[in-house]
Amino acid sequence: MALAYDGAIQNLIDAFARLPGIGPKGAQRIAFYLLGADEAEARELADAIAEVKARVRFCDVCGNVCETSPCPICADPRRDHTIICVVQEPKDVMSIERTREFRGVYHVLGGAINPMANVGPQDLNIPKLLRRLSPQSVSDAAGSADSVDAQGAAQGVEDVREVILALNPNIEGEATTTYLARLIAPCGVKVTRLASGLPVGGDLEYADEITLGRALAGRREA
Amino acid sequence: MALAYDGAIQNLIDAFARLPGIGPKGAQRIAFYLLGADEAEARELADAIAEVKARVRFCDVCGNVCETSPCPICADPRRDHTIICVVQEPKDVMSIERTREFRGVYHVLGGAINPMANVGPQDLNIPKLLRRLSPQSVSDAAGSADSVDAQGAAQGVEDVREVILALNPNIEGEATTTYLARLIAPCGVKVTRLASGLPVGGDLEYADEITLGRALAGRREA
Repeated sequence: MALAYDGAIQNLIDAFARLPGIGPKGAQRIAFYLLGADEAEARELADAIAEVKARVRFCDVCGNVCETSPCPICADPRRDHTIICVVQEPKDVMSIERTREFRGVYHVLGGAINPMANVGPQDLNIPKLLRRLSPQSVSDAAGSADSVDAQGAAQGVEDVREVILALNPNIEGEATTTYLARLIAPCGVKVTRLASGLPVGGDLEYADEITLGRALAGRREA
Repeated sequence: MALAYDGAIQNLIDAFARLPGIGPKGAQRIAFYLLGADEAEARELADAIAEVKARVRFCDVCGNVCETSPCPICADPRRDHTIICVVQEPKDVMSIERTREFRGVYHVLGGAINPMANVGPQDLNIPKLLRRLSPQSVSDAAGSADSVDAQGAAQGVEDVREVILALNPNIEGEATTTYLARLIAPCGVKVTRLASGLPVGGDLEYADEITLGRALAGRREA
């Protein structure tokens, strides 16, 4: 019985099935789609994968993924470098950019504190955040010369006046928010966090008690 | 506002979003997964895509995808070459193989008759099926030398005694089944089709009327 496809097809199905969110049926469907697709489209996908590994790095300032360091946002003089929005992952930067409500800069932690997964503060991009909040301390701690360069490149000369903690509204995000708020307090910088409440377009009936409770507690004049 | 990612990442997201069954969010998730994955895994996926386009072809005998022609099934002397199971797509071959109930060989049509999508009998791999059913007609029609080779390689010398039409149980599959049954009839070969009825493990209550009607009509002694 031939219970697996011929070599190359099965390899492709297996490779796709390892990706997040793709099951065996989906991987098979994609493999046959690529088999039928023209050479150029398949080539493009293979090249895009190779390119991303070759060219993408992390911004020395904010920790976001980028091809140049500092990243385009950190290097943009039209952005407000006195407000830093702290997020967990690079994709969260994009989510906030899509709101078109934020003109400041970002700091990407690369995760959240999660004791269950053995992720502690030391595994997150926190030291660089603290250095951005008190640039003079960088010259104090004469050690890391590269971060001084990065600070300069990012116009880090202005003092930061607000840090917005925009972590995921779940246990890990809350723990990280609390941790960071305490850690940043001594810097004398204003620390804020995203509002909790009802999602826009949502239905009161389907809101969970905690969300509804937060929406009540955070109510404001209409 | 940076509403798209830096070049290489956005290219990768776009390339994945073009694949069937992957939306923009899924594509983003995969792109960041690959960014974080080790070099070898990303390389493997890129290579698998290139390989499949370079090495995979169609079997000259049955039309299935394979790396050698005839394909491993057509070339296997232990399989019963007198029973041909006709399916729409290469993935249907794998579905039937998984039943471990079929020891014959296959013929892949590459689709089904679908006037709405402008797919007619002329777009399907039907001429080669007819040649497999009456090998002597190949020598009559002295034209295609390669298909004679293919027949020989596939032990096509034995006369086919049954054709199982295993097309999808939908309108297009039914139309193609009816068309093929009429077309094959003059060859004097037994033509059968898959049974319609209740899916195993299903619930009578949830069976649609047509399926239940077919199950009744096709009832057999218990």
